[in-house]
Amino acid sequence: MFDTMLENVRRVHPLIHSITNYVTVNDCANILLACGASPIMADEPAEAEEITTLCRGLCVNIGTLNSRTIPAMLAAGRKANELGHPAVLDPVGAGASALRTNTALELLRQVRFAVVRGNMSEVRTLARGSGTTKGVDADAADRVTEQTLPAAVSFARAFAKNTGCVAAITGAIDIVTDGERAFCIRNGHPMMSAVTGTGCQLSALTAAFAAANPGHTLEAAAAAVCAMGLAGEIAHRRLGELDGNASYRNYIIDAICNMTPEELERGAKYEVR
Amino acid sequence: MFDTMLENVRRVHPLIHSITNYVTVNDCANILLACGASPIMADEPAEAEEITTLCRGLCVNIGTLNSRTIPAMLAAGRKANELGHPAVLDPVGAGASALRTNTALELLRQVRFAVVRGNMSEVRTLARGSGTTKGVDADAADRVTEQTLPAAVSFARAFAKNTGCVAAITGAIDIVTDGERAFCIRNGHPMMSAVTGTGCQLSALTAAFAAANPGHTLEAAAAAVCAMGLAGEIAHRRLGELDGNASYRNYIIDAICNMTPEELERGAKYEVR
Amino acid sequence: MFDTMLENVRRVHPLIHSITNYVTVNDCANILLACGASPIMADEPAEAEEITTLCRGLCVNIGTLNSRTIPAMLAAGRKANELGHPAVLDPVGAGASALRTNTALELLRQVRFAVVRGNMSEVRTLARGSGTTKGVDADAADRVTEQTLPAAVSFARAFAKNTGCVAAITGAIDIVTDGERAFCIRNGHPMMSAVTGTGCQLSALTAAFAAANPGHTLEAAAAAVCAMGLAGEIAHRRLGELDGNASYRNYIIDAICNMTPEELERGAKYEVR
Repeated sequence: MFDTMLENVRRVHPLIHSITNYVTVNDCANILLACGASPIMADEPAEAEEITTLCRGLCVNIGTLNSRTIPAMLAAGRKANELGHPAVLDPVGAGASALRTNTALELLRQVRFAVVRGNMSEVRTLARGSGTTKGVDADAADRVTEQTLPAAVSFARAFAKNTGCVAAITGAIDIVTDGERAFCIRNGHPMMSAVTGTGCQLSALTAAFAAANPGHTLEAAAAAVCAMGLAGEIAHRRLGELDGNASYRNYIIDAICNMTPEELERGAKYEVR
Repeated sequence: MFDTMLENVRRVHPLIHSITNYVTVNDCANILLACGASPIMADEPAEAEEITTLCRGLCVNIGTLNSRTIPAMLAAGRKANELGHPAVLDPVGAGASALRTNTALELLRQVRFAVVRGNMSEVRTLARGSGTTKGVDADAADRVTEQTLPAAVSFARAFAKNTGCVAAITGAIDIVTDGERAFCIRNGHPMMSAVTGTGCQLSALTAAFAAANPGHTLEAAAAAVCAMGLAGEIAHRRLGELDGNASYRNYIIDAICNMTPEELERGAKYEVR
Repeated sequence: MFDTMLENVRRVHPLIHSITNYVTVNDCANILLACGASPIMADEPAEAEEITTLCRGLCVNIGTLNSRTIPAMLAAGRKANELGHPAVLDPVGAGASALRTNTALELLRQVRFAVVRGNMSEVRTLARGSGTTKGVDADAADRVTEQTLPAAVSFARAFAKNTGCVAAITGAIDIVTDGERAFCIRNGHPMMSAVTGTGCQLSALTAAFAAANPGHTLEAAAAAVCAMGLAGEIAHRRLGELDGNASYRNYIIDAICNMTPEELERGAKYEVR
């Protein structure tokens, strides 16, 4: 199934409008190209809707948000809804500041997102309507382990049901659910957290997979999560003695670039609950 | 001839003021350093003219333009004109939104650019005064092939004559013309389009070559286009089995860094029409 | 001593708030992760203080400053002072424009910085209250050589005494002083100046070292400077025939990622004057 999802990205070449933070934007653009999609970044309210209209999908990432880009996010999101294009929300740092929390909540109120892709702390913040995230990484207390997995899946299901979005909550074990079926995914490598923006890149990838697989948002999001984790594994095997997180960053994108549909199908490690 | 152009960049070390998008800005800075120039990025209107004054050349790239940076682009461009410094315009995404099209047209009205470096869809948009570019890549209909080359050269010549700029229109075959002589360049590799910002990097490179070769803008722009394409070829030969677009991105900049004037002279593939 | 400094960064994992330019921000984030710290970037005044509060240290880098980010820098700096968190100032391009010079001076007036990390031209500009820096690199006249070292150390000591900051002035020979003791550091490689943002990365690293070593700001800053220089040496030895400044950029961050405390202790080349 996931092979078809990736094949569709490579066949459709969806153009993805990304309103994203300036920290990891270059990697988001390159990973979109790596998977077979095309990126366009545009965060000025005066052009946001027009750019969304050109595209097949939208990714809104609130890292380094500001007073100028927030209206662009809202306008682009509403336009994507109007056009029936899938929109992905990455609530980077929701819970770390009132501005981020409130912006993410406002986006959820005004825009129907196909997928919300974040870490557990960020998504918990959205569920509660407030939060205390300690930065842009998940709090230790929010880590998903085999022990906490059942509770985490229940939480993710409830979040998906309440918001009408597919929830893609990533961590040591990833959970992707539409409120009914839940994919529990065990791809990835711990060293991915030593590369800035692997989450941002996954959100961009998710938008591409969702845009190329209309009507299959849950599977598309799960496929994107597996692809990113698998890329992290492949890239990790490639690391030489002198390689560190900078080379790892490049190797992850390279692995997406070279990933065949069959490789993804074979390498995806998940169970459906 | 192109050997001298590159030699001059390495000898003069021109400082280049870049007002450029935040997607590819780091690569633009590193490719300027790779060719022997120095970058300074500054997009706040309050300092734009002062920074332009310190520099020998200017590159204005309208990707991720916004209401704050547009006045900086105009002010920097007028100041470069006043000082007689070459300015390069990269009309990223002209035709994709009214804001981009109108900003590019306004820049062309207020500033005399030494070179306009874009893809065929972007430059057609500028020629027509409006456009329907589908993103930041050239439309399929605008692709320059051996068959469409004669018409494309005529178009480029007319654009150069009408605007008084050297037109550097890049694609499968690149055309660089001042309205009289036209260089048709066959360097490069198709995989370059899988790396975000190779066009932006080329525009930065063009500004460096133009700044270091005053009075020879046409040849300088053609040399920059050949150098970038040749770097794409050299970098492609270097790709290993596991390398993808992220490693390719690094190898292209590395190839500019290591390119000797003789290598450029020998490797440049062009005819003059 | 420097081994303990790095050990502390790896043990404490300090979260560092960076308000930094968009040219080199990704490298700053990845080098923070490489050394064992965590990055969070946030430059909107509406959230700056809250983000600073979450963190253990602050790095303010004025490259690509603008009218929106300057108030965020000031607010974050004052908040860091209030909380007793170390703040590092990187006065990128001070002297290149009145806006940069005045912003750096205003930051020094309103905020007590633990460390000012810049090149000699930038720090001279701050000392004089005005300047004529030619871009973002040090002027030739300001180069620190064995001959000019004694005068440079005296200048750095006076600057540190007058401002109450540790001065970390980097170049061919680096000087780090609190106004009394002065570390003269001979790590590094000339090719580091062919990579954009090695200075910005060092400033981020300095904030991490200072945050993880409270009460030892001078030694922490000196350790960060040695670590960066040593990484430049290690990375340079790794360069293959086809590698250029783009690969070098990755190798430098990789070297920080793989650097052991013992390696830093052994590799640090300094004298205390």
